[in-house]
Amino acid sequence: MNVEIINIGDELLIGQVINSNAAWMARELNIAGFFVQQFTVIRDDHDHIMQTLSDAGSRASVVLISGGIGPTKDDITKTSLCKFFDTRLAFNEDAFRDIEDIFNRRGVRVSELNRKQAELPESCISLPNKMGTARGMWFEKEFPGGRNVIFVSMPGVPFEMQAMMNGEIIPRLRKRFDTPSIAHKTILTQGIGESFLAEKIASWESALPEELKLAYLPQPGIVRLRLTGAGMDEQKLRKTIEDEVAKLDSFISDYIFGYDEDKLEEIVGRILKKKGSTMGTAESCTGGYIAHLLTSIPGSSVYFRGSVVAYANEIKQSVLGVTESDLVKHGAVSESVAREMAKGARRVLGVDYAIAVTGIAGPDGGTPEKPVGTTWIAIATPRGLISAHFLFGDNRQRNIRRTALQALNMLRKAMIVEK
Amino acid sequence: MNVEIINIGDELLIGQVINSNAAWMARELNIAGFFVQQFTVIRDDHDHIMQTLSDAGSRASVVLISGGIGPTKDDITKTSLCKFFDTRLAFNEDAFRDIEDIFNRRGVRVSELNRKQAELPESCISLPNKMGTARGMWFEKEFPGGRNVIFVSMPGVPFEMQAMMNGEIIPRLRKRFDTPSIAHKTILTQGIGESFLAEKIASWESALPEELKLAYLPQPGIVRLRLTGAGMDEQKLRKTIEDEVAKLDSFISDYIFGYDEDKLEEIVGRILKKKGSTMGTAESCTGGYIAHLLTSIPGSSVYFRGSVVAYANEIKQSVLGVTESDLVKHGAVSESVAREMAKGARRVLGVDYAIAVTGIAGPDGGTPEKPVGTTWIAIATPRGLISAHFLFGDNRQRNIRRTALQALNMLRKAMIVEK
Repeated sequence: MNVEIINIGDELLIGQVINSNAAWMARELNIAGFFVQQFTVIRDDHDHIMQTLSDAGSRASVVLISGGIGPTKDDITKTSLCKFFDTRLAFNEDAFRDIEDIFNRRGVRVSELNRKQAELPESCISLPNKMGTARGMWFEKEFPGGRNVIFVSMPGVPFEMQAMMNGEIIPRLRKRFDTPSIAHKTILTQGIGESFLAEKIASWESALPEELKLAYLPQPGIVRLRLTGAGMDEQKLRKTIEDEVAKLDSFISDYIFGYDEDKLEEIVGRILKKKGSTMGTAESCTGGYIAHLLTSIPGSSVYFRGSVVAYANEIKQSVLGVTESDLVKHGAVSESVAREMAKGARRVLGVDYAIAVTGIAGPDGGTPEKPVGTTWIAIATPRGLISAHFLFGDNRQRNIRRTALQALNMLRKAMIVEK
Repeated sequence: MNVEIINIGDELLIGQVINSNAAWMARELNIAGFFVQQFTVIRDDHDHIMQTLSDAGSRASVVLISGGIGPTKDDITKTSLCKFFDTRLAFNEDAFRDIEDIFNRRGVRVSELNRKQAELPESCISLPNKMGTARGMWFEKEFPGGRNVIFVSMPGVPFEMQAMMNGEIIPRLRKRFDTPSIAHKTILTQGIGESFLAEKIASWESALPEELKLAYLPQPGIVRLRLTGAGMDEQKLRKTIEDEVAKLDSFISDYIFGYDEDKLEEIVGRILKKKGSTMGTAESCTGGYIAHLLTSIPGSSVYFRGSVVAYANEIKQSVLGVTESDLVKHGAVSESVAREMAKGARRVLGVDYAIAVTGIAGPDGGTPEKPVGTTWIAIATPRGLISAHFLFGDNRQRNIRRTALQALNMLRKAMIVEK
């Protein structure tokens, strides 16, 4: 089923807002078994809207329109829709009751502007908006050759659009077109680059059942593997995917840290909570970023106690207890200093587990022996110390991110081994 | 001059990548005096490309096409361009020399795939690509009614596209169409909401010269004011903008912290560097985020020495020296604890300036007296202590961000007053 998406909004065409609505809609439509062949972004202009609707309808079976119908917009989009579908606006009691309900809940009186939102094209099926006052409008129109094309207009406010897509539009489209189920599972890996990963799983990948497809989605420090399958029997499809994910685990279990929307900082937090343990960090090159990731998770104060960001060597000494002789002999970016920092953090912060990192984030500070990207990570646990050396790239922001993810995954693995 | 933008790429249509290229192009074109009337996103499909080029050409004077011509793409886009402009591919010596240069610099041999990138449509003017191997292609075609339409194809890789737009395409378009100059100046404010800001500058805004337009661009913790002007005399235009910005300063000097692409953490760093001073942070609710912002700036180790993230009260006591009686009497989120944390950080980290923050980031932990969003910030300087109370919202991520920006701006102001 070919779908086209039309986004109406001046703010998009002057580049003030990036069109993330279209990407979101396309992702959801894909999962539901629909194929999106074109996005079109236009202004709230009558002639241009008319032309775009007509062009899209001549190519696609479904045309989804978002934007142009909020309470502060003028009526161009709605008027154009009436003209295109040869109908007229009429006051809709149901729509008005919904609007009143929303305003009553907010303790505000309905304004004249909002009253106008209850005026809807007579020929459309109106779709409820749980998050706002602009209703969705579902039209059908016959095109030359007897093709029946569905047009749905919805608000442009992202959370209103998303609730309406998931709650109303996609379920109705799936019913109408009886699309195959599409299922996704994303496997999250850390600590291995895309090409090495591809080598390790080559035999698994080439033996994948025909109905499954694999995509590599690399980000700094993380490679996501997305397995997508299409089929008429959803349960069977899900089972096939689960089986393949289980097989995959035997190839790269060392690198898999989670699935789908998991975050390393959340997973580490869950393990700590379960153990009833606490943690903290001692950070040099990451400058507080690991602590920031951990504390961005609501409820992290249960297990996260604190951090010492020791950017200056004096603080490594005075607060964390790193010895001057270690700093002089091995340098601040060295295994012994990382280990002393981790031990010091465990003691000073009074925690069960401590992460320590020291490295050269760049762009300056590199030497031939220790180029930019050189990083030492140490993990102190109740049972002892683990440390490892890494050479990341020459980009400061990416080095900070990669170091943080590597350190969090080392802590995760250390805690799992203990179980 | 009406422009349309066509982006070619499957990754856009499945929603894997958000179309930030179109937004970037539209912003730059706007500044150069061009009006963008439509974005179209399509796949690398011959028939669809042909139809889209023809439709766009029938509406616009300039059609900009990005994507579909990288080294790993098949030749559909280039072949379609040849067909549309009735020409054929030919080996281009200049293009090949450029490709060889790039590979020589990387110390890699030119592959067969890259050799093919030197094959270009005969009828186009080819545009150099300073950042990669795919050249730009400039075509002109006559449409019914004697309209001459310009089509330019360029790579989809953002930094290659951007360099080509700014270095080649926009200068050529401006020359051709003799567009008015458009000048922008963005004024960055912190610590005041959009509506209060609008009230304070109402008289200035209503007295703005006709050729200038003002836009409010709010972000969490920051409101940007963008002043845009259009005119034929660029120098005069810039002068008018500078005059208005100077006038604006007298209304809201307390809230303006910078201009255009300035970042608060960078400005604070510049002031510290100039003074030869050092700083550090003591963070509770921000969990290391302020330290992270400061250390994300290259070279920050000159003035940033470290941080104590004291999430647990015990660390506020043991490392920063906050007294138990203060914690019991006033609670961890209180003015006295914030001030003690700042003093402690200044001493423990051995710095000239210290920021301390303590607050309830949420979503849990609020009480009727201290709701979520309650925040105390203290700044310790060589001359004394400053502290202030804030009530931010109920969103954890936004509270962290707003607290960090507020604290950095308080430090900035404290340092400026001293001068």
